[in-house]
Amino acid sequence: MVLNLLKTRFTVLLVAFIAVFSANVKAQDVYQQYRQGWLKKAEDYKPRLSETVKQPVSLVRLEKDKAAFQGWKAVNTDSVGKLYNTSFKTQSGVVADFGEHLTGYFSFTIKALKGTSDAPVRIRFTFGEVPSELSVPFDPYPGTISRAWLQDETVTVTEIPGTITIPRRLACRYVKMELLGASPYFDFQIANIEFKATTSVLNKPPLLAPGTSSLIADIDRVGLNTLKECMQTVYEDGPKRDRRLWIGDLYLESLANLYSFQNNDLTKRCFYLLAGLSGDDGVLISNVFETPEPHAQVGNRLLDYCFLYNVALKEYVAATDDKQTGLDLWPVAKKQLDMIRKYAGADGMMDYVKAGKEWWVFFDWKDGLDRQACLQGLSIYALNQTYALAKQLGKEDEVSDVPALARKLKNAAYKNLYDKQTGLFVSGTNKQISYGSQAWMVLSGVASKPEAQIALKALATAKDAVHPGAPYMFHYYVAALIESGLKNEAKEAVQTYWGGMIKKGADTFWEVYDPNDELKSPYNFYPVNSYCHAWSCTPVYFIRKYPEIFQR
Amino acid sequence: MVLNLLKTRFTVLLVAFIAVFSANVKAQDVYQQYRQGWLKKAEDYKPRLSETVKQPVSLVRLEKDKAAFQGWKAVNTDSVGKLYNTSFKTQSGVVADFGEHLTGYFSFTIKALKGTSDAPVRIRFTFGEVPSELSVPFDPYPGTISRAWLQDETVTVTEIPGTITIPRRLACRYVKMELLGASPYFDFQIANIEFKATTSVLNKPPLLAPGTSSLIADIDRVGLNTLKECMQTVYEDGPKRDRRLWIGDLYLESLANLYSFQNNDLTKRCFYLLAGLSGDDGVLISNVFETPEPHAQVGNRLLDYCFLYNVALKEYVAATDDKQTGLDLWPVAKKQLDMIRKYAGADGMMDYVKAGKEWWVFFDWKDGLDRQACLQGLSIYALNQTYALAKQLGKEDEVSDVPALARKLKNAAYKNLYDKQTGLFVSGTNKQISYGSQAWMVLSGVASKPEAQIALKALATAKDAVHPGAPYMFHYYVAALIESGLKNEAKEAVQTYWGGMIKKGADTFWEVYDPNDELKSPYNFYPVNSYCHAWSCTPVYFIRKYPEIFQR
Repeated sequence: MVLNLLKTRFTVLLVAFIAVFSANVKAQDVYQQYRQGWLKKAEDYKPRLSETVKQPVSLVRLEKDKAAFQGWKAVNTDSVGKLYNTSFKTQSGVVADFGEHLTGYFSFTIKALKGTSDAPVRIRFTFGEVPSELSVPFDPYPGTISRAWLQDETVTVTEIPGTITIPRRLACRYVKMELLGASPYFDFQIANIEFKATTSVLNKPPLLAPGTSSLIADIDRVGLNTLKECMQTVYEDGPKRDRRLWIGDLYLESLANLYSFQNNDLTKRCFYLLAGLSGDDGVLISNVFETPEPHAQVGNRLLDYCFLYNVALKEYVAATDDKQTGLDLWPVAKKQLDMIRKYAGADGMMDYVKAGKEWWVFFDWKDGLDRQACLQGLSIYALNQTYALAKQLGKEDEVSDVPALARKLKNAAYKNLYDKQTGLFVSGTNKQISYGSQAWMVLSGVASKPEAQIALKALATAKDAVHPGAPYMFHYYVAALIESGLKNEAKEAVQTYWGGMIKKGADTFWEVYDPNDELKSPYNFYPVNSYCHAWSCTPVYFIRKYPEIFQR
Repeated sequence: MVLNLLKTRFTVLLVAFIAVFSANVKAQDVYQQYRQGWLKKAEDYKPRLSETVKQPVSLVRLEKDKAAFQGWKAVNTDSVGKLYNTSFKTQSGVVADFGEHLTGYFSFTIKALKGTSDAPVRIRFTFGEVPSELSVPFDPYPGTISRAWLQDETVTVTEIPGTITIPRRLACRYVKMELLGASPYFDFQIANIEFKATTSVLNKPPLLAPGTSSLIADIDRVGLNTLKECMQTVYEDGPKRDRRLWIGDLYLESLANLYSFQNNDLTKRCFYLLAGLSGDDGVLISNVFETPEPHAQVGNRLLDYCFLYNVALKEYVAATDDKQTGLDLWPVAKKQLDMIRKYAGADGMMDYVKAGKEWWVFFDWKDGLDRQACLQGLSIYALNQTYALAKQLGKEDEVSDVPALARKLKNAAYKNLYDKQTGLFVSGTNKQISYGSQAWMVLSGVASKPEAQIALKALATAKDAVHPGAPYMFHYYVAALIESGLKNEAKEAVQTYWGGMIKKGADTFWEVYDPNDELKSPYNFYPVNSYCHAWSCTPVYFIRKYPEIFQR
C-alpha cells in the first residue's frame, strides 16, 4: 500500500514536471525537429560523384611573359612520354599539364629504372590552377588566410615500385614535380601520373543556337567547366578554396544549373543542408561544411546571403514546380524576413549602419563600397521574391504584411537615394555612386525602366564610380542591364569582362578579376585566390536564359 | 589414319624437344625451385607484430649544451597536458618526448578550440631519435645518401576534428610540431598524440644476476631496447635507416636474440629469406627488402657477409638443435665456401686485392682500414665454422677439403701477417696495424692464446693503430678479448665504449660512435645516422653469454 501510494505520487510529480519542461523547450524543440528532418533530406539527396581518370596531355615549361596572365605562361615542350621514359633525377621541376581544370585525386606510379631502391624518395608536388601558382614562391607566405590552402604536398615514398595517391583532394590543371631526395645508388622513373576527377554533373547541357559567336560559345564553355568543377557533393564556392557551400554561391550556381546541367537534386540538397544547419533562432548561417559531419561556420552570419536564400528558393520552385521542397522550407524563408522587419525604420529606410555593426554585410569583395543602397535594394527584392514564393505555395496569408513593407522601402529608396539631377542612385552619407548601388536599385524596381537605363548608362562617365570588385557583383550588374532592357550593353559587358578572362587563358572563371590588376587578391597573395570560382559561372545562366541576347 | 599418324609424329617431336629443353635449364631450375621453397618458408615464419599504443611523457625544450651529446639536450618543461589544453597556435615548435625509442606509426588528433575550422591546417612534424635531429636544419642537405631518410613530414589537415596517422613508419623518441599554416579566424588544439609501437619481440629476457653492476645493467637494458626496436618482420639494421635485413646485422642480432628474446622463428625467417633471394649462381646478396614483395638489392654483394651467413647459421643450429633448418639451407652455406676457394692462393693467402676489386669487402665503416688480415681471418673462421655445421648435419663428406684448406690459410696467415717482434699482426703492403686485424687473427685461431693476449694488449700503445670505426667492428674486438681470455679487458671495453653511449644519454645504441667525434657520419651529415642500430646491440650477447665476466 505504502509502496503504491509512493508510486502514484511520484507519477503525478513526474507528469507535472514533464508538462512544465515541455512548455519551456517546445519552441526550440520543434525547430530542432525540423532541422533534423532537413538534415536527413540533405543526406538523402547527396549525389554519388562520377569519377573519370584523366591523363596529362603534355609537359610544359613555365616562362616569364609580360603579355601573359599574371606574367607567366605555360609552353608545351614534350609529350608526357618523356616524363615516363626518362630518369626522374634528370627532370626535377618538370611540369605536366592535364589540359583542363580538374578536381579530385592525384596518383603517381614510381618504378626503379636501374638498380634496386635502397632509400626513400622525396618529391614535392605543387598543383596549380594557373601557371603563376607554380612559378611564384609560396614561402615566406604573405597571405592573410591559411597558408595550407596552397596546394604543395611533399611525399616520402618508402616502397618502390608503388602507386601513391595523395590523400588531399586537389584542384588544378598543372602539376609540378620536384625531387627533394633520392639515393645516389639507384635510378627511377615516374612511370605514370593520373588524376581521378570528380563531379556530380551527370547531364550534358543543351547545345547553344547555331549562330552563337565563338566568343560567347567560349564563355559558355568555360562557365560550364567552372560550374561542373564546383558541383561536387554540394555547390562549392571553389574546389581549391574554400571548398564549401556558401549561400551566395549557391544562388548563382543554382541559377546556372537550371539552364544547363539540371541536377536539381543537388540544389535541393543544398537548400536542406543550409536549413538543417541554421541557428536555434532559425536564422541561416552563411556557409556550411559537409565533413567530418555536416556543420555550419557558427557565428558567420551574412545578412545579404540570408535574403538570397529566399530568392534562390523562389527561383528553384518557380522553375521546377517542386512545391514540396518549397513547403518544407517555407518556415526558413519566412524566418529570414524578420531581419528586414527588424532593420526597416519608420521612414522606410533600412538601418544599414546598425545592420553593419551586427552583421557581415557583404555584396562584393570591394573595400570602401557603401552598402546602404545595395542593402535597401536587396531587401525590397527579397521581400517581393519571398512573397512570390508564398503565392506559389499558397502561403500569402502568413506574410500578408510584406507587399506593403516592400512598397514602403521602395518609396523611401526612391525618395532618399535617387539623384534626379544626375540620374544616378547614391549610397551613404557621402552619396557614393557605385555599380552595386545602381544594380540593386534597378533589380529591386526602385528605378523605372527609363530611369534604370539612364542610371546604368551614366555609370560609364560618372566620376569616382565604385566598380565591381569581383565577378560576383558583376553578375548583378549584368542582371540589371538585362532587367532594364539594355540588351546590347549586357552582351557587351559579358563579352568584355568574362571574355577578358577567356583572352587571358582562363580554363575556369576566377574568384577575383580586375582587368587592370591581375595580381589583385583579397588575401594579400594572388596564388591563394581561387581560379575556379562558382560565383563567376553565371554567363552560363545569362547566355542560356536569354538566347535572344547572347545566342544570335 | 592420316590424322593419327600426324598426332604420333607430333608427340614424338614434343617429347624430344622437352628432353633437350629440360637438360639445358635443369641446373638453374633446381636452384629456382629451392629458392621458391625457401621464400615460402620465410613467409610461413613471418611474425605478427605486437602493437602497443604509447603516450608522450612530457614536453621538452631543446637547449644548446656543449656537455650534451652532439651539443644538444632535451630539458623537461611541461606536462603533455599543456600541449593538449592550449591553443596550438601559441605552441608552434613544441617538442614532445615519448621517454623511449619507438618504432611504428604516429597519430595526432586535432580539434577546434574556438570558432569553426574554415581552412586547412599545415603542420610539419619532425621525428628524432636524438635531440640533434630536431635542432640541426635539414636543408640545404649536405648528406651523401637520400635526404628522404630524414623524418620530417608536412601534413595538410583538411577536416577538423580529425585523427590523422602519418602513413610512413617512423622511429623516434621525440617529435617536434611546427605550425606552417592556419586560418586566423579559428583556433585549435592538438588534443592527443600517440605512437603505435611495433616489434616482433614477444618474450621477456631472463633477469640478470643479482650482483650485476648498474652500468652493465644499463648497457644490457639499452642493448635489449636496440634489439627489440630492430626486430620487426625481419631483423632490421636500423628502424629509422636502412630498415632492412643485412647479413652482418642478422648475425649479431641472432646471437643477441639467442640469449635474450629467443624469437628463433624470426632468425629462421631471415635465413630463409636471404637464401630465397640469393643470386642464380647461389651466392648470397648482402641485403634484402620485404616490400612491396621480397627482393634483394641486386648487385650488392658483400664478401664478408656471405661468410658470416654460414657462421650465423652454425651458431643457430648449435644453439637450437634445429637440424631441419640447417639441412634445408646447407646448399647455401656450402655454396658460399666457393668464394674462399676461389680467392685462396697456392701460398695459402687470400687474394684480397682481386677480391676487393670484384666485391665490396666491408668489415667496418672505416676509411683506410687495410682489409687483408680481416679477410684472411674471417675466411679461416668461416671455413672452420662451416665445417662444424657440416658435422652437426652429418655433411662432412660434402666439404672434406675444408679442414686442410683452413689449416693452409691459417699457417700462411701466421707466416705472412704475424710480426714476432712487436707481437702484432699486420695487414697489407704497408703492414698496417689495426684493431680489426688483431681481432680476426685471434678469432680465427691464427694467434695462440698467449699471442692473442699480447697482440690485443699491444694495441693500446701501438702507434697509428687503426681503431674501430663503428660498434660493429667493436663487437669483434670484444669477442677477441673474450676468446683470448682477457676477461677484465673485455668487460672494460664494453663498459667504456657502450657505457660511453649510456653516459651520453643513449636510449638505444648508435650505428656510429667515435668517443672523440660525436658528429662523425659515414654519410657526411650526422642527423641521417641511425641512432638505433642492430649491430650495436651485442653487449646483450656478451653480458648474457658470459655472466662470469659481466654479471659479477
